[in-house]
Amino acid sequence: MALPKGTTVQFTSEQRLDDAVREREFTLGEIPGILWTPASASASASAPAPLILLSPPPLGLRKTYPRLLARARHSAADGFATATIELPGSGDRPRWPAAEQALAGLRLAMEADEPVSDEIIDALILPLVDKAVPEWQAALDALLSLPEVGGPVGYSGGVISIGVRLAVVEPRISAAVLFAGSFVPRVMFEEARQVTIPLHVLLQWDDEGNDRQAALDLFDAFGSKEKTLHANMGGHTGVPKFAGDAAAQFFTRHLK
Amino acid sequence: MALPKGTTVQFTSEQRLDDAVREREFTLGEIPGILWTPASASASASAPAPLILLSPPPLGLRKTYPRLLARARHSAADGFATATIELPGSGDRPRWPAAEQALAGLRLAMEADEPVSDEIIDALILPLVDKAVPEWQAALDALLSLPEVGGPVGYSGGVISIGVRLAVVEPRISAAVLFAGSFVPRVMFEEARQVTIPLHVLLQWDDEGNDRQAALDLFDAFGSKEKTLHANMGGHTGVPKFAGDAAAQFFTRHLK
Repeated sequence: MALPKGTTVQFTSEQRLDDAVREREFTLGEIPGILWTPASASASASAPAPLILLSPPPLGLRKTYPRLLARARHSAADGFATATIELPGSGDRPRWPAAEQALAGLRLAMEADEPVSDEIIDALILPLVDKAVPEWQAALDALLSLPEVGGPVGYSGGVISIGVRLAVVEPRISAAVLFAGSFVPRVMFEEARQVTIPLHVLLQWDDEGNDRQAALDLFDAFGSKEKTLHANMGGHTGVPKFAGDAAAQFFTRHLK
Repeated sequence: MALPKGTTVQFTSEQRLDDAVREREFTLGEIPGILWTPASASASASAPAPLILLSPPPLGLRKTYPRLLARARHSAADGFATATIELPGSGDRPRWPAAEQALAGLRLAMEADEPVSDEIIDALILPLVDKAVPEWQAALDALLSLPEVGGPVGYSGGVISIGVRLAVVEPRISAAVLFAGSFVPRVMFEEARQVTIPLHVLLQWDDEGNDRQAALDLFDAFGSKEKTLHANMGGHTGVPKFAGDAAAQFFTRHLK
């Protein structure tokens, strides 16, 4: 169900973290989210902070909160506001039957150590992209109307196909950090060619269940003149600290 | 012809660049070289600067001087000493007939747009590695005996197979930045598995005449627990400034 145009952010809680970060939970319609801003930016006198949309992995905000917070803290120290919203079908948000079925198929294939079929990948990812992208655009509308949040806007995620679609359809996003760690429907390679914003792509070389060749092919497909691939050792959640720092530097270079 | 053990660096010229860098040309036996040190490090009171061995591409020091100097300046600003020596067969150093023949074969293959055979790659690269590596080790002996130069030592190059062999045989090298932009003999993939030091590998995604898949396979083969691949757009000499900065940060992280 699409959000009505003009839906605003309703804050539901607020806390200060270490006097450096202001954390506010909010709802956008039915969708829960979190906004982190540099504590100094709450003074109405200071300039609005450029925004980073931090798309979570599809595991729910609660489960991934520590990882999201670590990145939001880093961004706040660099002068950025960071916002995240729950993905469709994650956390407490309603699942849809086709996704449940695709997920079951995925588990079967992975347990049997078989390649995951294009049909399963499409059924798993494409409806998620179709549902999520308008929500992130609505979140962007709502967040940019706050006086303490401004542009330019960066995107950092998560499910890479959501980032690809957003980079194509949302002109307010100026630069993106993409995480090459999820299944990519074939049709997304075509969309990738239409992406022109600067990209910083993270690839965990030994990511369990990630198709390294597909990640390299997707990187090759992006139409952007400036695109950088940072490949590091380790599994899905093992991104080294220095790689996170390099991603942060990418945003500082492009959004400040 | 191997250098006699204990060959020392003979300085032949000295100049200050912008009051920040001390540049000294030297000879090591018959081999010309250049040493750049932070100008502040020339005072005998200051601690010795960690050394970066900067291996040039096989085009001669004179031709590549501007590129080498730019990197040496950056390193000096970070507190490093940087040294380079002419590769065997480059600049004014004598060629050997087999290399000339291999080079002619390479040109023929590239002009005909044919794949370069393993035989040509072996004949081009393996004797160069065999000759160059002991020279870099002799240079390391000589440079580390200077009071203003110390450890730990980093290697940054150039012909990637020279870096691979050096990383295997020379325990004084603690970290290496390798440039995936030259032909790699098959035997080097075996040597790559023996490399264990932290590696930062630069790959120009659209490098003319470079085999991208071979570069990715070589990255995969390295035995190092910490290895990072930074792939960027552009051709052989088009490494973006931010990628050079990231390589410099890698050395600061590992050598300081």
